[in-house]
Amino acid sequence: MPLDLAAIRDAHERIRPFIKRTPVLTSEKLDAASGGHLFFKCENFQEAGAFKSRGACNAVFSLTDAEAATGVVTHSSGNHAAALARAAQLRGITAHIVMPAGAAESKVRNVGSYGGWITFTEPNLTAREAACARVAKQTGATIVHPFDDLRVAAGQGTAAVELLEDVPDLDVIVCPVGGGGLLSGTAVAAKALKPGIRIIGIEPALADDVAQSFRAGRRISIPTPATIADGLRTNCTGAKNFPIIQQYVDDVVTVTEDGIVQAMRAIWDALHIIVEPSAAVTYAALLESKVAAKDLRIGLILTGGNVDLEKLPWIKPAE
Amino acid sequence: MPLDLAAIRDAHERIRPFIKRTPVLTSEKLDAASGGHLFFKCENFQEAGAFKSRGACNAVFSLTDAEAATGVVTHSSGNHAAALARAAQLRGITAHIVMPAGAAESKVRNVGSYGGWITFTEPNLTAREAACARVAKQTGATIVHPFDDLRVAAGQGTAAVELLEDVPDLDVIVCPVGGGGLLSGTAVAAKALKPGIRIIGIEPALADDVAQSFRAGRRISIPTPATIADGLRTNCTGAKNFPIIQQYVDDVVTVTEDGIVQAMRAIWDALHIIVEPSAAVTYAALLESKVAAKDLRIGLILTGGNVDLEKLPWIKPAE
Repeated sequence: MPLDLAAIRDAHERIRPFIKRTPVLTSEKLDAASGGHLFFKCENFQEAGAFKSRGACNAVFSLTDAEAATGVVTHSSGNHAAALARAAQLRGITAHIVMPAGAAESKVRNVGSYGGWITFTEPNLTAREAACARVAKQTGATIVHPFDDLRVAAGQGTAAVELLEDVPDLDVIVCPVGGGGLLSGTAVAAKALKPGIRIIGIEPALADDVAQSFRAGRRISIPTPATIADGLRTNCTGAKNFPIIQQYVDDVVTVTEDGIVQAMRAIWDALHIIVEPSAAVTYAALLESKVAAKDLRIGLILTGGNVDLEKLPWIKPAE
Repeated sequence: MPLDLAAIRDAHERIRPFIKRTPVLTSEKLDAASGGHLFFKCENFQEAGAFKSRGACNAVFSLTDAEAATGVVTHSSGNHAAALARAAQLRGITAHIVMPAGAAESKVRNVGSYGGWITFTEPNLTAREAACARVAKQTGATIVHPFDDLRVAAGQGTAAVELLEDVPDLDVIVCPVGGGGLLSGTAVAAKALKPGIRIIGIEPALADDVAQSFRAGRRISIPTPATIADGLRTNCTGAKNFPIIQQYVDDVVTVTEDGIVQAMRAIWDALHIIVEPSAAVTYAALLESKVAAKDLRIGLILTGGNVDLEKLPWIKPAE
């Protein structure tokens, strides 16, 4: 099944009972600061706290009953894990979750709260993939990859469909990119609905595998990045996603760690919402002038809001 | 002009260009925890960070040109101050703001960002009213009282109109009460639109003047309360508001300081939004079983989101 607007619309119908139609927020202050008109798609309000519920629900509810019977398994730095656990719980099947040691506490709790079965491994892609394959073999569970799965990418693309329904006249969409599932789905949906729109992927400079790959014209793998944006610590973009990104995405730019924290703080202050660092990269790109904003109408996908509320990057905790 | 649904609808038309239609959020987790169906009206997303923009815009845009020419003046613990400064800026007139020493830094900054002229006084009602009267006399500015003004209360009531448009079948609305402007407007609007609905005012137990007054059948004044809910530190409910509260409000209940912090934290965690303690009293009333929730559809008015992000009540700061 190719990733096209029809697949994304099918996904939208399939997942509608299980996800939220998230609001789009605006801020006079952030508009004034950027010189543009900013429209924040609040996937931090999505069920399980991130856009990942869209892709996970599409994958889980696409399974045949026979496939579903043996459950699902994935590896994830957190938000896909919680989303898949929740989707499995909604379908009444088992979700096995392989998580990296060091994942944010709030994300581990989140998986537990949806009844997911957690296995911890080393925080690198090889170890995670090996553990995932082992569980799949032992249990017969279907692997639902966090990003390199076109059913997942189709689900993620439904956020852009809603954003363009609410704000049809956008000039640009800026979208965080880790493994590329959201960016693929967003680009395919948006370019089909509005061919002239620009789609820009945003990565932490410390996790710039997609920016490097985009320039090189081939997938480049990097060591596990240490960025504060824990949702974007991928080593390499997905093999299925990369050609889609090459075809539909206009640019991939990077932002600094300082910029991410500043942007996160600015969003909390001005919009009164909680976003995680991985979501804040979008506004960081404007703050750092990596994306032009002046007089443009810009959609920013705020991907998630799962943060340890005891550990805010701008508060030095007591010893 | 009486406070009735017609006045509230007029206010809504008048202020529509200057305020946001704020979204109503829900949470599977908070529904499960409470046993009810909770609908959070997010006035923390309102312009200037609180519902106060509704009443302030209605008051400022109700002035004749001659009245407007000499500006407006008010005293406020913060959110009404910012809202009035913003409304005055939108109309191109001067706002003089009398603020209590010790108001949250974020609230002081907020007033400044909208060009308000600030005068600090002692944090008690007598000193604030005296300073306000002095400025009015010196400048000819119109006093826009933070709550005891029926144009203000009519503006505040527009939030309940929107809430009932979005969720018509509510059983109960819970509403913070400080001076009573929001509670009056909410009760009048909601009882007109849906006579069977229950309206419950929520106060910190440390600032229980309205609860006391409601039971006694007369306005009771208390010393300036020390509650964490800085928007609810009123000494006494408004003379114009109290008879409306007596007529239309079903009950006024109180919550503990601990309950307020717990509720604030739970809302941040589950809804991924930033609310101030004064807004969290609503959910605190459910947490502390002061309002029955089981199987009921409950609207909660989240009044504001202006918080000092360096000083969260659940983080002990470094020395």
